[in-house]
Amino acid sequence: MKITVLGTGAGARCHTARLTELGHQVVVGTRDPQATLARTEPDMMGTPPYQDFHAAHPGIELRTFAEAADDGDLVINGIDGANAVQALSAIPRAALAGKTLVDYAVPYVYQQPDQVERPWPTPWGVMPRLEPVDTDSLAEQIQRALPDTKVVKAFVTQEQETVTHPKEFADGDHTTLLAGDHTDAKNAAGELLRAYGWRDIVDLGPLAAARGMEMYAHLHTAIGLALGTRFGVKIIR
Amino acid sequence: MKITVLGTGAGARCHTARLTELGHQVVVGTRDPQATLARTEPDMMGTPPYQDFHAAHPGIELRTFAEAADDGDLVINGIDGANAVQALSAIPRAALAGKTLVDYAVPYVYQQPDQVERPWPTPWGVMPRLEPVDTDSLAEQIQRALPDTKVVKAFVTQEQETVTHPKEFADGDHTTLLAGDHTDAKNAAGELLRAYGWRDIVDLGPLAAARGMEMYAHLHTAIGLALGTRFGVKIIR
Repeated sequence: MKITVLGTGAGARCHTARLTELGHQVVVGTRDPQATLARTEPDMMGTPPYQDFHAAHPGIELRTFAEAADDGDLVINGIDGANAVQALSAIPRAALAGKTLVDYAVPYVYQQPDQVERPWPTPWGVMPRLEPVDTDSLAEQIQRALPDTKVVKAFVTQEQETVTHPKEFADGDHTTLLAGDHTDAKNAAGELLRAYGWRDIVDLGPLAAARGMEMYAHLHTAIGLALGTRFGVKIIR
Repeated sequence: MKITVLGTGAGARCHTARLTELGHQVVVGTRDPQATLARTEPDMMGTPPYQDFHAAHPGIELRTFAEAADDGDLVINGIDGANAVQALSAIPRAALAGKTLVDYAVPYVYQQPDQVERPWPTPWGVMPRLEPVDTDSLAEQIQRALPDTKVVKAFVTQEQETVTHPKEFADGDHTTLLAGDHTDAKNAAGELLRAYGWRDIVDLGPLAAARGMEMYAHLHTAIGLALGTRFGVKIIR
């Protein structure tokens, strides 16, 4: 299967590397391929420049968002939450029509501590707020923007390293979640998750459940800060 | 220890019964004790009238919120999220001063399906929204309203039956969470949790982490609907 990964951040690289390792052909999309490859400094999250990753993974094409989306049979959205709807809407509709798009973005809005009325301090500043939140989700916004595409929310309730390598924790004996309005698209996302090593995949039903998945980001961050380590979450029946 | 439980709903009854079983003296607070005991119909959540519970648990006093709060060494807040700040603020400040208050309320705002722009359908109507959400929490509102009281958010990431009887799932091998700005109050809440049967209790740090705990309500509901059963959540390191 030819899989498109939109985005070149740390999470997108996890999926790109893992999918390649699993034998898939992967095409990566970025706003401006030449600019992405020319960058020599770490990004705002401290991720090393993409040129290092690109050199270490020969054979992975880097194309524009539109070219990459057109090329893949299934699309993973790793564009950051604040830019995802705009960037995806700019892709010609036909390039994504009929395809499964798995979205794992969290719609963070980063805030300056001195502009926040009640800051929640973290080691890197203050907790970002979410937009949308509660009565809408980024996944639903994307689905409304791309009515011909089948949006699945998944890969969002763990760090991306954990999503792609679930056996790091308790030999993979933990749980991952997905939601969406299209059963065949959820099946396709589930197949990817099983290939990554997941055995316990809970389908939360309609894409509206993405609200809860995205809002879990705050609890996930708080648990990570408390433990000082990555972790897995297992649902005990 | 004399423990006050504010509220007479299903969750409050779980704590009241379990604490009594564990040998604590429990005093229950309600807005109007005579009215609460006179009610003969189930409440809006379908919980049987309190008079049934009261008759089945002799020796548990039912008092006004203010009397009950004054009487206890530790207070559990089971007043529903929409009314909690107002009801707690109406209690004379001295009755709660210096005490630990464990809050497990979720600040739900129930909505009529036809008044919601993007409803998230559930078997009982639509998912309630949360207020506050994201940049504030009910627990922090309560702490600001009661500056002399030590507020802990706990008991909120499970059904209350699961909180009080964790060994129902995997012999108690799952995880519960708490947050607060007062270490001694968190220790007191932790002691209660251990008495209930919890072995894995993660301290999420400051009370601002209650935002994530309250916002998890949507994911918790979605998982419960998907599984059709109660469940536990275990954090795998």
